[in-house]
Amino acid sequence: MNANAAASETDLTANEIEQQVLEIARQAKIAARSLATATRATKDAALLSCADALIAASDEIIAANELDLQRGRDSGMSAGLLDRLELTAERVASIAAALREVAALPDPVGEIVRGSTLANGIRLRQQRVPMGVVGMIYEARPNVTVDAAGLALKSGNAVVLRGGSAALESNRVIVRVLGDALEQVKLPRELVQSVDDYGREGGVALMRARGLVDVLVPRGGAGLIRTVVEQSTVPTIETGTGNVHIYVDADADLDHALEIVINAKTQRVGVCNAVETLLVHADVAEAFVPRMYAALTERNVTLHADDRIRNLIPGGANVAAATETDWETEYLDYELAVRVVDTIDEAIEHIRSYSSGHTECIITESLAASEQFTAEVDAAVVMVNASTRFTDGGMFGLGAELGISTQKLHARGPMGLAELTTTKWLVLGDGHVRP
Amino acid sequence: MNANAAASETDLTANEIEQQVLEIARQAKIAARSLATATRATKDAALLSCADALIAASDEIIAANELDLQRGRDSGMSAGLLDRLELTAERVASIAAALREVAALPDPVGEIVRGSTLANGIRLRQQRVPMGVVGMIYEARPNVTVDAAGLALKSGNAVVLRGGSAALESNRVIVRVLGDALEQVKLPRELVQSVDDYGREGGVALMRARGLVDVLVPRGGAGLIRTVVEQSTVPTIETGTGNVHIYVDADADLDHALEIVINAKTQRVGVCNAVETLLVHADVAEAFVPRMYAALTERNVTLHADDRIRNLIPGGANVAAATETDWETEYLDYELAVRVVDTIDEAIEHIRSYSSGHTECIITESLAASEQFTAEVDAAVVMVNASTRFTDGGMFGLGAELGISTQKLHARGPMGLAELTTTKWLVLGDGHVRP
Repeated sequence: MNANAAASETDLTANEIEQQVLEIARQAKIAARSLATATRATKDAALLSCADALIAASDEIIAANELDLQRGRDSGMSAGLLDRLELTAERVASIAAALREVAALPDPVGEIVRGSTLANGIRLRQQRVPMGVVGMIYEARPNVTVDAAGLALKSGNAVVLRGGSAALESNRVIVRVLGDALEQVKLPRELVQSVDDYGREGGVALMRARGLVDVLVPRGGAGLIRTVVEQSTVPTIETGTGNVHIYVDADADLDHALEIVINAKTQRVGVCNAVETLLVHADVAEAFVPRMYAALTERNVTLHADDRIRNLIPGGANVAAATETDWETEYLDYELAVRVVDTIDEAIEHIRSYSSGHTECIITESLAASEQFTAEVDAAVVMVNASTRFTDGGMFGLGAELGISTQKLHARGPMGLAELTTTKWLVLGDGHVRP
Repeated sequence: MNANAAASETDLTANEIEQQVLEIARQAKIAARSLATATRATKDAALLSCADALIAASDEIIAANELDLQRGRDSGMSAGLLDRLELTAERVASIAAALREVAALPDPVGEIVRGSTLANGIRLRQQRVPMGVVGMIYEARPNVTVDAAGLALKSGNAVVLRGGSAALESNRVIVRVLGDALEQVKLPRELVQSVDDYGREGGVALMRARGLVDVLVPRGGAGLIRTVVEQSTVPTIETGTGNVHIYVDADADLDHALEIVINAKTQRVGVCNAVETLLVHADVAEAFVPRMYAALTERNVTLHADDRIRNLIPGGANVAAATETDWETEYLDYELAVRVVDTIDEAIEHIRSYSSGHTECIITESLAASEQFTAEVDAAVVMVNASTRFTDGGMFGLGAELGISTQKLHARGPMGLAELTTTKWLVLGDGHVRP
């Protein structure tokens, strides 16, 4: 019996779901072996086959997506979410193009990370190898299904996906199409599987598949990530939340500061590397705040400001009094918390209290201030005089990106192909024994 | 109130214990900042101060240890465990010497892992920084207390320790002595703290101190590690279990094979890199097995052998019939499971089924066999023609070792100082904004 066969959730007990998900993970583990030692040529052929198959199945994918959209509209889904869910012929083409870009990236597998010959003649080398089976739990957007599968395949891994229920029909067709494309190049379709048919319990079973799933990457809101961290026994890489700060120092170039704040807040608002809180040194507040306020108001940004900021823009519209909650909030919208600080130490202390460890930025012309800020602020990415929007695998030249890790273990910051691998030590002797 | 003050477990509720352990972790996090940007000279001075203080307090430590030993003897602790628990003046001196060796190792913090200048002129660098707060949960041996503290300090981290209750008195004195030594060099004593006074519940609270403890390393038996993996919300690095195999191939040099098997089994038996199962290719079984049997019997090793092995040593003493359990067992003793395989594929399949992912070894003169084995076997360390006893941070030239990771995330194989660090991306711009 194919454990992947569509099963309505309600027909199965939690235990049956767990057994079927474990069986899927077991099949993934076996399939992963065929890819672990595959050449780059084989993996790239698989990616190109998948890209071609998605284009060929474009109409079918769009028809399935229409069912998801209809369900979304019926249940009152917001226009923004419907837009993220929607697939058009153009979007399918761009998803396929992304797979071709992954094929063009170098293969991380086989890279020698360290190596040496020991005094006793033993040759030692530490080499990149695939993780094995990667689990992904994510929310609505169906393009993530293809992105995750592409990155996992390129790095030699099998992937087990649990997508958002809102994209159920779209994802079902996409996973089938990718499976067919893998078989076309004589690879097992079990390299890309989904547990979407098992609903929420399927996701939980995936989190508990220790020994079969090597790493789990949750990608979504804070609630999803908390659930995974609490419940998972599989090692997890936390991604995402960005309560991002920019600190405008006493020695800032205020023209740079203005351009960077506008870019970091408004170039795209619904993303984790957009700025959410602005800290302004008291020495430059009078010169900077009115300009900043005018520029952001023009772009429809609402400020949540402390008293000192509000005193500098008397009677300003679009300005609310900041509360404790504002310092903690990742708005992901046209909103920005702002406060005045008297010293760089106060700025760093504020960031320590509220940072999610994603990206933190200082605007300054002072070498001493930039050195202090970069040394003392603890985050995945610390910037000097650049927009926080640069925290991105593509921008960093890492190629495609699976997410941005905000944890310290294994991967920190943008995660590319290398972060989906582990290493293996090879010890080559000639009859060596330990004295 | 000092949250570290000795409190009898029974006086406190689980909730009070949790609050006090969280307060200890919070103090550790603050203390860690003072070390995160410290120079190597400061950290080395701290290590040397700790080494001197341990020597100076040797009598006091030994007196406390005598209380632990007495309790151990009263409760019927085995001679082996009592030996691991015991501290003598010589052992204290060797623990202090190990700290001096850690001081002599290069500082991992500040190393640039990757770096480049992007097309737009942004300078990008990924730099090693300390984790922050390292948690250690371990069993009886009091030397681990000092080893863990030394490695954590050298890599710029604070450490929170939960040692085995059997070493409670020894560890209490050691932690106090280390704290005094840190204050001598003007560092906060909260860099090295213990939660031993809170018993088992203290350990659980440490596992749940997410956001305060950055990584937790359990070091001990399978039961301890399973508990930590199940209960911890702090990211964990699993160490230790070694169900280690040696496969003697059809093309093996049998003299090498014999020496390596003897070394890997008997050079030291109670360690995770000792061999536990031997697989012998049918083509060389007749020539190899009687020699192997004679050599191991002479060294008091009992075999658990399949029928084909037993047919080659008729009437042999010290040979039991192997059962399924034997293939799964990490004996850590003078015992070895042995079976005949007909092909290298059968050997690899056996290893796949029973390996704990620690160290796996092939003895062969065949290039093809060595290539197949190293490519297809999935373990932290894969060896060709060398004793499995070489899986060791010291042997690998990594310096001291915190443990041997058998997981794939973050660290795999011997964990040295670099594995106690994470990285931070630094992005240096000149007013750059994202187009």
